[in-house]
Amino acid sequence: MARITIVGLGLIGGSLGLALRRGQVEHELVGYDADAQAARAAQRRGAVDRAVGDLGAAIDGARLVVLATPVLAVRELLAALGPLLAPGCVVTDTASTKTAVLRWAAELLPDVAFVGGHPMAGKETSGVAAAEETLFDGAIYCVVPPPDAPPEAVATVADLARAVGAEPYFLSPEEHDSYVAAISHLPFLMATALVSTTSQAKSWRDMAALAASGFRDASRLAAGDPVMYRDICATNREAILHWLDRYAEALGRLRALVVEGGGELEAAFEQARKARQDWERRPRERGQEAAGPAPRFGERLGHLFLGGLDRRAPRS
Amino acid sequence: MARITIVGLGLIGGSLGLALRRGQVEHELVGYDADAQAARAAQRRGAVDRAVGDLGAAIDGARLVVLATPVLAVRELLAALGPLLAPGCVVTDTASTKTAVLRWAAELLPDVAFVGGHPMAGKETSGVAAAEETLFDGAIYCVVPPPDAPPEAVATVADLARAVGAEPYFLSPEEHDSYVAAISHLPFLMATALVSTTSQAKSWRDMAALAASGFRDASRLAAGDPVMYRDICATNREAILHWLDRYAEALGRLRALVVEGGGELEAAFEQARKARQDWERRPRERGQEAAGPAPRFGERLGHLFLGGLDRRAPRS
Repeated sequence: MARITIVGLGLIGGSLGLALRRGQVEHELVGYDADAQAARAAQRRGAVDRAVGDLGAAIDGARLVVLATPVLAVRELLAALGPLLAPGCVVTDTASTKTAVLRWAAELLPDVAFVGGHPMAGKETSGVAAAEETLFDGAIYCVVPPPDAPPEAVATVADLARAVGAEPYFLSPEEHDSYVAAISHLPFLMATALVSTTSQAKSWRDMAALAASGFRDASRLAAGDPVMYRDICATNREAILHWLDRYAEALGRLRALVVEGGGELEAAFEQARKARQDWERRPRERGQEAAGPAPRFGERLGHLFLGGLDRRAPRS
Repeated sequence: MARITIVGLGLIGGSLGLALRRGQVEHELVGYDADAQAARAAQRRGAVDRAVGDLGAAIDGARLVVLATPVLAVRELLAALGPLLAPGCVVTDTASTKTAVLRWAAELLPDVAFVGGHPMAGKETSGVAAAEETLFDGAIYCVVPPPDAPPEAVATVADLARAVGAEPYFLSPEEHDSYVAAISHLPFLMATALVSTTSQAKSWRDMAALAASGFRDASRLAAGDPVMYRDICATNREAILHWLDRYAEALGRLRALVVEGGGELEAAFEQARKARQDWERRPRERGQEAAGPAPRFGERLGHLFLGGLDRRAPRS
């Protein structure tokens, strides 16, 4: 029975553990968290078979180590892991930016098979109490290998994605960081600016009483973990500023149309509405397995997950 | 049996009808829509007892007329209604801005008891097919009377709010328009600008595959009815520009902190997170009935709803 170790037992680490145990993976699931209370809570919730209070003991003999922490903590962990990893161990992470993480892995663990990961699922609540075994069901799971990654290591991380109910999606760190800046980091900053604007207004108490589902959705991401987002901004600054500036331009164009008050404003609304509806109705992505460039790793023999894994049918 | 007429049988008008019928209101519910197909669909869904194809016939003898159309159509209707209304009829609307509507009512229906209304509930889908009898359950329902409104007319609209499961909330048209600009119209423009920015990017197809629940929530309002929002911008321009500019300033401050990369960025995130969490956990508003300045209209005798109305206990 091979060991999988999850380092960082918050929302994502805890949900990965719960999803893996739901899949009846025949591996020992060990957890570590620098916060001993969080580690105990994860064990009580059944997110790991056992929580171990020492990082070295937790990853001792592990075939797969998953770092499920904010980005800057990943760097510290990569530095600490070097001397502790078993030969052949695959290391992955779940952090929200990938360029910096892959650079650190190349610097700090040059001889270790590291493959970046990022499940596109989350909630505005954090901590293992918010973890869910279904969090990744049907989600896209970005798999971001360095150019020289051993195919078996890539296959292992892709199988981890499938094992938790998600679809692996292969892309380069630069693509990943630009896309998530636009569709995830920018929306967080939008929500934060909205909450700053409204909650600091003199009339906030009255406004707050009227605010309904539109405000709820528009502001939801502002409740996200400040440390996670601080680290995201520190490691994806250029892409975030790029999209923030494009967004400010779009807002400025809308402002001009509101002032003008002509038919162009309605046309702009109509165009955005159609794009949003097309996105909502888009055919479900099946990772890129049907048509994309990535090999069908799942059919390879001999890597970590084969045999032990209860492969549920993909959801339609 | 008195008649209530709903003019405009879309999402809001249809949901009002369904909610009133759920409450087993002992009134005849008549519907009118300029679009005959929409009117028939509303009748088939049971949102009205019957749809009438002629506006005059639809409101003939009505004790309460509810205008549930986009703002600019309210103006046209107010102009058309004058000669058709029965003496003592109360007219209300459900439109998203109130200053212009009250001005038009004073100009076009000087002798009619008009009280503005705005239920703070909605969806990004429109049309009677999307209507729900529970749409207003627990929602705040803004009641915006002109200074000279007869108390019975105000009481009737407040009781309409209660009859559909909502809580009446009394405020002036200027307060209303400023608050909804901040917590509803601004979020719509934010979502529209986000969708414009991302969907016109070269990499949209790949981004769209990665976009998950964060993007879904941040962009949802962009799928709203373009005509409704065009009318909102036309009739609430100043308040919208005010809040749009405050929002752009807040975004600019965040941008500067992202560039700086210091601890202030995390502090700004933490502050917004706390404000968002406080809002989410705020005590449920009970309209203003417990403590506010408005009289308990529901206890008056003799007005339209008393007797006929199945008063369900308010939800806690």
